[in-house]
Amino acid sequence: MLEELKKQVCDANLELVDKGVVIYTWGNVSGIDRDSGLVVIKPSGIDYDGMKPEDMVVVDLMTGEIVEGKWNPSSDTATHLELYKRYDKIAGVVHTHSVNAVAFAQAGMAIPALGTTHADYFYGDIPCTRELSKEEVEEAYELNTGKVIIETIENLNMDPMAIPGIVVQNHGPFAWGTSPMNAVYHAVVLEQVAEMDLKTLILNPNATIAQYVLDKHYMRKHGPNAYYGQK
Amino acid sequence: MLEELKKQVCDANLELVDKGVVIYTWGNVSGIDRDSGLVVIKPSGIDYDGMKPEDMVVVDLMTGEIVEGKWNPSSDTATHLELYKRYDKIAGVVHTHSVNAVAFAQAGMAIPALGTTHADYFYGDIPCTRELSKEEVEEAYELNTGKVIIETIENLNMDPMAIPGIVVQNHGPFAWGTSPMNAVYHAVVLEQVAEMDLKTLILNPNATIAQYVLDKHYMRKHGPNAYYGQK
Amino acid sequence: MLEELKKQVCDANLELVDKGVVIYTWGNVSGIDRDSGLVVIKPSGIDYDGMKPEDMVVVDLMTGEIVEGKWNPSSDTATHLELYKRYDKIAGVVHTHSVNAVAFAQAGMAIPALGTTHADYFYGDIPCTRELSKEEVEEAYELNTGKVIIETIENLNMDPMAIPGIVVQNHGPFAWGTSPMNAVYHAVVLEQVAEMDLKTLILNPNATIAQYVLDKHYMRKHGPNAYYGQK
Amino acid sequence: MLEELKKQVCDANLELVDKGVVIYTWGNVSGIDRDSGLVVIKPSGIDYDGMKPEDMVVVDLMTGEIVEGKWNPSSDTATHLELYKRYDKIAGVVHTHSVNAVAFAQAGMAIPALGTTHADYFYGDIPCTRELSKEEVEEAYELNTGKVIIETIENLNMDPMAIPGIVVQNHGPFAWGTSPMNAVYHAVVLEQVAEMDLKTLILNPNATIAQYVLDKHYMRKHGPNAYYGQK
Repeated sequence: MLEELKKQVCDANLELVDKGVVIYTWGNVSGIDRDSGLVVIKPSGIDYDGMKPEDMVVVDLMTGEIVEGKWNPSSDTATHLELYKRYDKIAGVVHTHSVNAVAFAQAGMAIPALGTTHADYFYGDIPCTRELSKEEVEEAYELNTGKVIIETIENLNMDPMAIPGIVVQNHGPFAWGTSPMNAVYHAVVLEQVAEMDLKTLILNPNATIAQYVLDKHYMRKHGPNAYYGQK
Repeated sequence: MLEELKKQVCDANLELVDKGVVIYTWGNVSGIDRDSGLVVIKPSGIDYDGMKPEDMVVVDLMTGEIVEGKWNPSSDTATHLELYKRYDKIAGVVHTHSVNAVAFAQAGMAIPALGTTHADYFYGDIPCTRELSKEEVEEAYELNTGKVIIETIENLNMDPMAIPGIVVQNHGPFAWGTSPMNAVYHAVVLEQVAEMDLKTLILNPNATIAQYVLDKHYMRKHGPNAYYGQK
Repeated sequence: MLEELKKQVCDANLELVDKGVVIYTWGNVSGIDRDSGLVVIKPSGIDYDGMKPEDMVVVDLMTGEIVEGKWNPSSDTATHLELYKRYDKIAGVVHTHSVNAVAFAQAGMAIPALGTTHADYFYGDIPCTRELSKEEVEEAYELNTGKVIIETIENLNMDPMAIPGIVVQNHGPFAWGTSPMNAVYHAVVLEQVAEMDLKTLILNPNATIAQYVLDKHYMRKHGPNAYYGQK
Repeated sequence: MLEELKKQVCDANLELVDKGVVIYTWGNVSGIDRDSGLVVIKPSGIDYDGMKPEDMVVVDLMTGEIVEGKWNPSSDTATHLELYKRYDKIAGVVHTHSVNAVAFAQAGMAIPALGTTHADYFYGDIPCTRELSKEEVEEAYELNTGKVIIETIENLNMDPMAIPGIVVQNHGPFAWGTSPMNAVYHAVVLEQVAEMDLKTLILNPNATIAQYVLDKHYMRKHGPNAYYGQK
């Protein structure tokens, strides 16, 4: 069942280790098959070392129930599902505890757009959610994490495909994309940009970027007349 | 004698190198066999490169005397023994000089609970001991290091299994756990959390976390109704 | 066509990965053959993994048109060409998004000459360009990036071979040299110096260096009576 | 000639690369044979990759002249010789541009004794020299670098074997020891301690250590009743 997607999700999880954004069992990546309404996700608390496609867990998008798999799915599954339900274009979701991104999350700060590295992938500040309330945490915490991500996106009138990541306050980054591997790519860039921004703010707390530079860099890669890369 | 425990302790010491929290001969891990009242610990000042289970030293929990082994035990042995004597549930102890944790120790600051990475393993601030007095340092320094760790834990009314680590002022981190490898795991997380917190405090010196987030994350992994990981 | 130069340019691009100053498809290196007026450059958005000399693209120095190659050239090609056109002695150009150099670019700050590591390769501050105007960004952005680099060099009356690098505001570093590999060498040193300077400024925001130390170190490697290295 | 010492010096140079404290051709290590009054040192500006014992250069301690070798000796040779001439017990000298130590050098600050990692190897602050004067730089720069190191040591009434390293203002660290490899060991520890101190000072600019802790840690490894390590 969904063998190709399981392989993609497994590869994307292992890429987290290769890129140095997770240690131990931290982090998780999922992917969705829109036709069947099934989501493939990393099992909870399992070592990356020796992880195989058949270890992935298949869950139902609408109910969250396990459809196939010998393990429990990631404890963050409800957050992933919430994002897939709300945004049709998202086909991969990832969560990490990468150090610099977590620093922004713990500081309760957006990762500001300050340069072209950021603008090449994220068309504006990478927002930080509000803190969850006591009730939201105690009842359906992971579901409410998904809801507060969506609330933040909606309040900012933000296109989630143009800013494919966020930091959840006191927690860490979530990123997404057009495939599991694309989501991981965004998580890695988000971490690099967080490190650049932390260092920039040490040098100059008032650093900013002009909107037209942001427009130019984002559009040369992602706009209708994009000319970065190959056809 | 205690061949299985020697292997565990040796493996846990080598894991310190693999995870990048020690260089040269720095750091030491021990494990205890509660039935016999014997502790297995790394030899003092020996290279990790080529270290074998038979290099481990067996000492008596109550007297500290060498029961078996060709080397002197770690110079920090008395600190380890003090922790084993006071807390029955501790089965592994580790000491490192990992950079970010040492920075907090040298600053005389607790590593504050600021996020869910911390809360997944440490149920509250990782405390910093007071400075040892001149007398404590000059007489039985390593024993008194153990005593000041315990004093700090007791004064805070802290459950050492819920906050399995501490930083000793001007010195560095000690961590412990339910096995030698589990102690190392905690030492590695403690170092990651210290780096996250240092960076967070640069961005926002007033960062905090709500108690209910701490409760939720700690309890979803360690509480009676834990649902992280596999059964 | 230009097989030897293609190999040099390919090797120099791969060196960026080895030295840890690029990830993914970021960064680009080019080299020039002054006799034929042809420039060899990395293709746009292509993975370094498995990159071969035959993937390099040959473009005309004056027109920028592709003379040979199966890929589109780097989107930054116009910047490279502008530097080659203006400065005869430049034979290699490189652009990266290395983290510490980008921090200075995003902060809008020169990388100040503060020590002998800097002085061994850069005979004075590594300048930061002004921000490009809206018009400059919207019309011929990459060409204007080259122009603002040259404008900065000219305004400072700077010898580009004595200070073989710059940071473009909100963007990142460009470096150059007497060959593609020499340009990469300068990009790597620029990144190291940026990290040293960031850390220096944390310790002492008023750090400076005497001009005569700068003179001495630069000249012992690059002056008429240089005595560093071998004959 | 001095084949064993050449091997030691070559190995110590290569250890600089393994420990990550040098890149490219930066850094240099030497060793002395006190009986013959000959010093073996790394050649100037030669890659570490493929470096062999026979590449080492033998120079005369008193005259600095090349006694054997196909290359020019390190441009810092005069600094090394000055240290060997003044201090009988030094048998190895090393110079690096390691990032955190350079930050202190560029900031013009001593690396303060703030913790036990420092105290295990350096019995007090690692001093920073004064700036060299214009005359000192222009005439016999490398010799005067040696002289200002010695001046600093003498002014502080410091035992160079108890504090086996220093940072030269605006330049970087020099370290020494009882063998070439021991000197490298000290250079690596100096860099680790510099990173710890930089991070400590970010957290607490007023951090200090009690003299009796310094005494205890230094003495348990190096005092007459040392008990760290093996007999």
